Amino acid sequence: MAAPWVVWFNEIMQSDLIPFLRPAGVVVIGASTSPDRLGHGIARNLIASNYKGAIHFVGQREGRLFDRPVYDDVSRVPDPVDLAVVVIPPGAVAAALDACGRRGIRAAIVISAGFKEAGAEGAALEERCLEVARSHQLRILGPNCIGTMSTHLPLDTTFLQPPMPPAGSIGFVSHSGALCAAIIDWARGQGIGFSQVVSLGNQSDVNEIDLLPALCEDKQTRVVVMYLEGISDGRRFVQLARQLSSRTPLIALKVGASESGRRAAASHTGAMAGSDRAYTAAFEKAGVLRATDTAEGFDWAKALSSCPPLPGRNIAVLTNAGGPGVIAVDALAARGMHLTELAAATRAELAASLPPAASVANPVDMLASARPVDYASSLAVLLRDKAVDGVLVISPPPPMYAAEALAEALSPVIRAAKKPVLMVLMGSELTKGAFRLFAEADIPVYEMPERAASAFLALARYQELARRGSPPTAPPANWRPLQPGTALNEETLARACNIPRAERRLALSDAEAAGIASAIGFPVVLKIASPDIPHKSDIGAVLQDLQDEAGVVAAYSKVRERVLATRPEARIEGVYVERQVGQGQDVILGALQDPDFGPLMMFGSGGIEVEGLRDTSFALAPLSDLEAHDMLQRTWAGRRLAGYRSLPPADEKQVVEALVALSWLAHEQRNLEEIEINPLRVLEPGLGVVALDVRYRLRSQDPDSP
Amino acid sequence: MAAPWVVWFNEIMQSDLIPFLRPAGVVVIGASTSPDRLGHGIARNLIASNYKGAIHFVGQREGRLFDRPVYDDVSRVPDPVDLAVVVIPPGAVAAALDACGRRGIRAAIVISAGFKEAGAEGAALEERCLEVARSHQLRILGPNCIGTMSTHLPLDTTFLQPPMPPAGSIGFVSHSGALCAAIIDWARGQGIGFSQVVSLGNQSDVNEIDLLPALCEDKQTRVVVMYLEGISDGRRFVQLARQLSSRTPLIALKVGASESGRRAAASHTGAMAGSDRAYTAAFEKAGVLRATDTAEGFDWAKALSSCPPLPGRNIAVLTNAGGPGVIAVDALAARGMHLTELAAATRAELAASLPPAASVANPVDMLASARPVDYASSLAVLLRDKAVDGVLVISPPPPMYAAEALAEALSPVIRAAKKPVLMVLMGSELTKGAFRLFAEADIPVYEMPERAASAFLALARYQELARRGSPPTAPPANWRPLQPGTALNEETLARACNIPRAERRLALSDAEAAGIASAIGFPVVLKIASPDIPHKSDIGAVLQDLQDEAGVVAAYSKVRERVLATRPEARIEGVYVERQVGQGQDVILGALQDPDFGPLMMFGSGGIEVEGLRDTSFALAPLSDLEAHDMLQRTWAGRRLAGYRSLPPADEKQVVEALVALSWLAHEQRNLEEIEINPLRVLEPGLGVVALDVRYRLRSQDPDSP
Repeated sequence: MAAPWVVWFNEIMQSDLIPFLRPAGVVVIGASTSPDRLGHGIARNLIASNYKGAIHFVGQREGRLFDRPVYDDVSRVPDPVDLAVVVIPPGAVAAALDACGRRGIRAAIVISAGFKEAGAEGAALEERCLEVARSHQLRILGPNCIGTMSTHLPLDTTFLQPPMPPAGSIGFVSHSGALCAAIIDWARGQGIGFSQVVSLGNQSDVNEIDLLPALCEDKQTRVVVMYLEGISDGRRFVQLARQLSSRTPLIALKVGASESGRRAAASHTGAMAGSDRAYTAAFEKAGVLRATDTAEGFDWAKALSSCPPLPGRNIAVLTNAGGPGVIAVDALAARGMHLTELAAATRAELAASLPPAASVANPVDMLASARPVDYASSLAVLLRDKAVDGVLVISPPPPMYAAEALAEALSPVIRAAKKPVLMVLMGSELTKGAFRLFAEADIPVYEMPERAASAFLALARYQELARRGSPPTAPPANWRPLQPGTALNEETLARACNIPRAERRLALSDAEAAGIASAIGFPVVLKIASPDIPHKSDIGAVLQDLQDEAGVVAAYSKVRERVLATRPEARIEGVYVERQVGQGQDVILGALQDPDFGPLMMFGSGGIEVEGLRDTSFALAPLSDLEAHDMLQRTWAGRRLAGYRSLPPADEKQVVEALVALSWLAHEQRNLEEIEINPLRVLEPGLGVVALDVRYRLRSQDPDSP
Repeated sequence: MAAPWVVWFNEIMQSDLIPFLRPAGVVVIGASTSPDRLGHGIARNLIASNYKGAIHFVGQREGRLFDRPVYDDVSRVPDPVDLAVVVIPPGAVAAALDACGRRGIRAAIVISAGFKEAGAEGAALEERCLEVARSHQLRILGPNCIGTMSTHLPLDTTFLQPPMPPAGSIGFVSHSGALCAAIIDWARGQGIGFSQVVSLGNQSDVNEIDLLPALCEDKQTRVVVMYLEGISDGRRFVQLARQLSSRTPLIALKVGASESGRRAAASHTGAMAGSDRAYTAAFEKAGVLRATDTAEGFDWAKALSSCPPLPGRNIAVLTNAGGPGVIAVDALAARGMHLTELAAATRAELAASLPPAASVANPVDMLASARPVDYASSLAVLLRDKAVDGVLVISPPPPMYAAEALAEALSPVIRAAKKPVLMVLMGSELTKGAFRLFAEADIPVYEMPERAASAFLALARYQELARRGSPPTAPPANWRPLQPGTALNEETLARACNIPRAERRLALSDAEAAGIASAIGFPVVLKIASPDIPHKSDIGAVLQDLQDEAGVVAAYSKVRERVLATRPEARIEGVYVERQVGQGQDVILGALQDPDFGPLMMFGSGGIEVEGLRDTSFALAPLSDLEAHDMLQRTWAGRRLAGYRSLPPADEKQVVEALVALSWLAHEQRNLEEIEINPLRVLEPGLGVVALDVRYRLRSQDPDSP
């Protein structure tokens, strides 16, 4: 008996979560006639929200509330009812859920607190509730949450002060109920409307991942903002979010960056890869935009929920005053956006209609005399320019006309535009009417140029992430997986990645040295092995470019003689014979199993200064060539592989291959806790790479060990 | 005949600028009865602002306006009158200024546009106005400005929509009139009040530097925000602002960062030191806080204008909900603030009054049940803890009481506190009443935790800059200035900085090599001089550790023999004899004459990759030891001088000395356009530094050359 409004929703939604967003009838368990009880507020909001389904109340005793009957038992509640909102003392919740299950209700929002968040006793209560719910196949949202809002349905299951936020196209799901309350109220002043708001509470059952597909399938929701204090299943999140984000922009406000600390780790990769970096890499992999500032996240959502796709980073600025224009220009440039050069025809067309002193180059400054009609016609000209991907339009409070006139003149042009236009109304009292008009016309409007510039970056990033294509599903053709049972050691690990190692063995005689050299291949380098001589080449104790066995035999004696002559006191352990590695650039490759997201890859400037220099980038394994190339480009170590001034280019292609191969190794060898190649010597183009040192750590054999 | 309200102002103000901020009588030249003329708006605002001095109007013809006489000539205006506001067509302004001068008026605000900003003809008009004004010793603010507001006087000489912004303690001076209009209106929604607003326009006479002392001396002004599109005299600005900022916090919103581009430059220092870096260094030297985000600049001003000094970076967070609390924690940490550890006594006292499930560690989470009285008592407890330098208090919209009650309970505690307390009210409609109450009580209040965290950083930075002490006025004791007329070359420049150079000379015979070695001092290194052998040590063509003449003679032959044996085809130009430089760390020191601010110093990771790696810091010369040390600490190259893992420590002290000396050299030798020591080899502690390469460029001898 679906009501007509259910057609607003797509049918693909996970069936057992449907009643949370689209119930046919709701019962409040704990409805109260006492105005200072939450159960009163929820009853009030259900009615005030203008919910069109059935509304029922269950209370401690029979009676009436808001002109409706209050039952003393959920079994007596008539059809239809498929969602319970439970707001009673925690000790009574399990019994209430049992009663709901017996009544045939399969979804319950538990508002009540006093569970896991309150200590061991509460945790036991929560466990009991979950058992009861599972026995009835009843799904729980909460406990310790503030409920849900579906503004288009409409439906409000919270106790927050009405009215609900304006209906819009942003879905918001939050691990913090207080943040829901704060954002809902804050957003009212920002021209932000919501489609769905969901407070997740303790997530004893339904979590942020479960709800994500349902939210993305909701036809009223064009972007989802997630406030996250953690992620329930990292690998599942990445996989799911990557699929969903290609159609619905996802924005994450992930907190806890400062708490994570660093893991005690044996490698540079481990020391650098705090769990917050893993989250950043996971969001990147999943196509999720991560905002580090709460307001900024919603600024992005505003633009992503209503703008056409931004084809590139070339922005035009339209203003009637220089100061605000140059603020916008700086803000765009600081975020990596480009101030586009306007076509000659565009400049000519603008010049024809603007005063002579106006600037028709980008930023276009129409001067203070610009009327709303000038804004509209200039914007139309800019939008026709192929070099313009989007336009940032600015107005301070207009002195000669009401700002509302600007909204009326511009809105039709912006609504019809095939490119994003972001409005900046710098003001408050004098601009609030116009601000509201733009917001009502679903046009993103901001108080400051910096916030619009940030939103442009979000529009660009979303398209760029979407253009990356599918994640790699199979390793590259030249990838040679390790046979099961292969012992993991430096050699097998490097070979699996197809990365040659610089071989080095200790010789105790000239004959042995010659034999080793023949075995590892010429040319070789001979080096004294002595703990007392740190700078061996300074005293000639390193001989290079040895091309044959005779040369090695002669060099063996020479190296020893030189040491005996200059450092007679030094202990000599023998002579190292090393395959000679050519000149090149040194980088670091690393991989670390993240407990939430699997192997996290690192690339960057190697040596001992990795943590100090911080010239590193991270991404989740397995990597595509494009992702690996991207990691290189985000570091100086990677960019300089193309050559820089007198520094010759190096074999970038082989670094990408090695990084991709290492990512597959880490992806497939889950017991490989950490691996790090530092340095990896990158030879000139065509000559490949050589691992000068490989370190790794395997997971403890005993799965029960801490 | 000073009115009683002049006692509000300090007497130290520059006397000829007094009439702009504190006139005894104002005449509007161009007063109009037509409501759509600016001259009407200005007349209206003068009266509406409740200005207590004399108000006079001069118009095209005699008549009446707002019940006052309109004169047709300023000569007929009665006393008192010491400020003219001129708003007539540009071509008529010079004559009007002449008339003002003859009338004895010594200050004029020229609102009229159509001057320098409109092209050559306008520039000529502006020049003419200035000549006329100078002939009468009349000071001009503008032209092309929107006037001034003195909210406490009160006085409004603008044409902006009344009312004036709320009276407060922020002075705002701006190169953009449109930005004044925008900020004044925007600030109304932010709980921000102003003491003075000054629009500078074209600055034909009075500029931002002239006004700064007057604003800082204004007793109602506790912080000055400057919107700057440039600085009129860089050196004067730095000197003046440094003096003023020790008493009055100064905040700069300097735009144009993206436009400046890079100078064509011969050195790494030149390539890195775009003019925006010079501005950043200048603000740092001057103790001015630079904001890169407009709203953030005013967020800082709000805190700096009303908070007691922040003694350190140790902050406590007080919240009634986890989510907003962790957002605040992340935001503080991201800005380098510390979440302080509360004393055991503090935690015990909090635990005694809060529910058992509350968190009494920092962040303190009182839980949703916290009432206003709990906020007030918990805040008082936190403020008593010596480990707490400041407190960030957060409230989402309270569900069980009106937010205004929170303002009433907290305001007395915050007003009485000796430490800064910043309020965050996350909301809009439900919190606006409380927001206003806090603002009226002069308590900084923000909508989001991130903005309060940023304000805390500004409070900390202001104190840290203030604690730096005086700038260096004299060079260090061991500084040896170059005698006038000394030819500048690598040798004299390095000697002036007391930085030894690695000497190297070409020898063409073994005897010559031995002679050179004796001259430059042992030990020496011999190296083949050949354009065909890039990696000389690979073939043994470098011999080190030569301790006497005999060794050098033997080595000379050996080096040549080795080359002849391994690379018979290579051209040999001779053998280099070089003073042997020990192992160490390499850094870069540089100085570049900035046209606005004088010599800009650079320190960082040297080599050829300076621009790529960007591990550099900048500061204006001359440097104190503390400033030089600070430059080191801002780079990895500087931090690792203390030693890092297996990297031994290096002579950091000598690097500081060298940097300070180089800064004095650049400061005193103004014709030294650029100098760069790259690399500077830093030996182990106690052994000093050696310049391995010095490059420099002198200013063209011909001062007329471009």
